[in-house]
Amino acid sequence: MIFTVKAEVSLKRGHFDPEGDVAAKALRDLGFGVASVRVGKTYTIKVEAADASEAEAAAKEMCRRLLSNPTKDDFKVEVLGFEGRSG
Amino acid sequence: MIFTVKAEVSLKRGHFDPEGDVAAKALRDLGFGVASVRVGKTYTIKVEAADASEAEAAAKEMCRRLLSNPTKDDFKVEVLGFEGRSG
Repeated sequence: MIFTVKAEVSLKRGHFDPEGDVAAKALRDLGFGVASVRVGKTYTIKVEAADASEAEAAAKEMCRRLLSNPTKDDFKVEVLGFEGRSG
Repeated sequence: MIFTVKAEVSLKRGHFDPEGDVAAKALRDLGFGVASVRVGKTYTIKVEAADASEAEAAAKEMCRRLLSNPTKDDFKVEVLGFEGRSG
């Protein structure tokens, strides 16, 4: 089955986030009462797996091996659903 | 109060996502059974608001005015919680 998995990669606490700082400043310039902004990335992945737990494990492995930088990033994985049978 | 709001900005269906395509290819090269990857951004925003619905409305307005491109992006806003009283 093809599962849709969302992997969210964000900077660890304490790491500088210049992109977030720029967004926060721009939002304040527009008049919003923003204290801070942190920017992260989401990967919505369609992955072949036998069941949801296999899909989740595969996505975590993808984060460890490619999508996140273990030195500076945290990641979070969530299985959103499946689309049916392939092959 | 300071609310933490997550705004997720992603490409609309049908828009090309070269960054996602590159990630999908790299994951396949590593041996993962990946059909597709779509990349989006998350903004975790700390915003001053009287209540959760005001925080949500402010974040939606931020997406409309700065964080998303209405031509090619969708966005989704979620209030994660609040941190206490400011001022």
